[in-house]
Amino acid sequence: MASVRIREAREGDCGHIMRMIRELAEYEKLSHKVKINEEALRADGFGENPFFRCLVAEIVPAPGDLEGPRVVGYGLYYFIYSTWTGRNVYLEDIFVMPQYRGQGIGTKIIKKVAEVSLHEGCSQFRLAVLDWNEKAIGLYKSLGAQDLTGLEGWRCFGFEGEAMRALAGH
Amino acid sequence: MASVRIREAREGDCGHIMRMIRELAEYEKLSHKVKINEEALRADGFGENPFFRCLVAEIVPAPGDLEGPRVVGYGLYYFIYSTWTGRNVYLEDIFVMPQYRGQGIGTKIIKKVAEVSLHEGCSQFRLAVLDWNEKAIGLYKSLGAQDLTGLEGWRCFGFEGEAMRALAGH
Repeated sequence: MASVRIREAREGDCGHIMRMIRELAEYEKLSHKVKINEEALRADGFGENPFFRCLVAEIVPAPGDLEGPRVVGYGLYYFIYSTWTGRNVYLEDIFVMPQYRGQGIGTKIIKKVAEVSLHEGCSQFRLAVLDWNEKAIGLYKSLGAQDLTGLEGWRCFGFEGEAMRALAGH
Repeated sequence: MASVRIREAREGDCGHIMRMIRELAEYEKLSHKVKINEEALRADGFGENPFFRCLVAEIVPAPGDLEGPRVVGYGLYYFIYSTWTGRNVYLEDIFVMPQYRGQGIGTKIIKKVAEVSLHEGCSQFRLAVLDWNEKAIGLYKSLGAQDLTGLEGWRCFGFEGEAMRALAGH
């Protein structure tokens, strides 16, 4: 029987990851916001000073299967710094392709992120989720996540584009 | 007349920064969450591979004043990675001591963060704010920030403590 493996992404996975980044943005109804491409992902994640790390979920075929392994999900994360608890992990994206959902692959990715975080001396990891994405919210809560916007009132703000350039005096 | 200068923090500023981290957490009514100390801040921010960068706002005395410069505010930030726009800046904390507010020092810090971001090739920077902090929200909006929780529905979630260890199988 086929099984699921969570492993660190390699540069050769960037095509798959970029395709899933676009699928996730479509699902989030925000695909017009995706400006990067596979080349940027290769350079930014697999050069000398990588800006992020990535896990991929791979379906490993049973012995004798004609197909090779298939990358069907990813979790992209990086290290942040909390002035309360020091170094932490931020899970920027987590995605499993629709036809592979309901098999616990998302949970496996989240567990691996928790393992990596503890291994790196981080006491927590954060993520952001869209308020209408009830399935994801249900999953995170079932795994013990706290809704910090609900509990403490955090709202996300961003300075982008023209506002940023005006601020910087450009 | 005294003037305000925004400069990069030095290791010797960590005592001031730690004091203001605690003041900010008190203002946010979340001071029980502060677990780090000055030594951690020195090690994490001023070693070989710093985990964050920090700006401080300093009152520079007029010539002839008996007092030296006073650190009265800070902005602590680091680099993150967006799968939409690549490398970005995250402003984790911004704080001005109460008795120095209303002089545009917060705005100066934000402008400097925008400058640094553009200089480092980042097209945007993000931050989080508590929903009851109307003064801060008003300032960010007046400077062109978008409320991404309001516009797109983002909520912050966190896996902490026992939940993290359980996930990692510890």
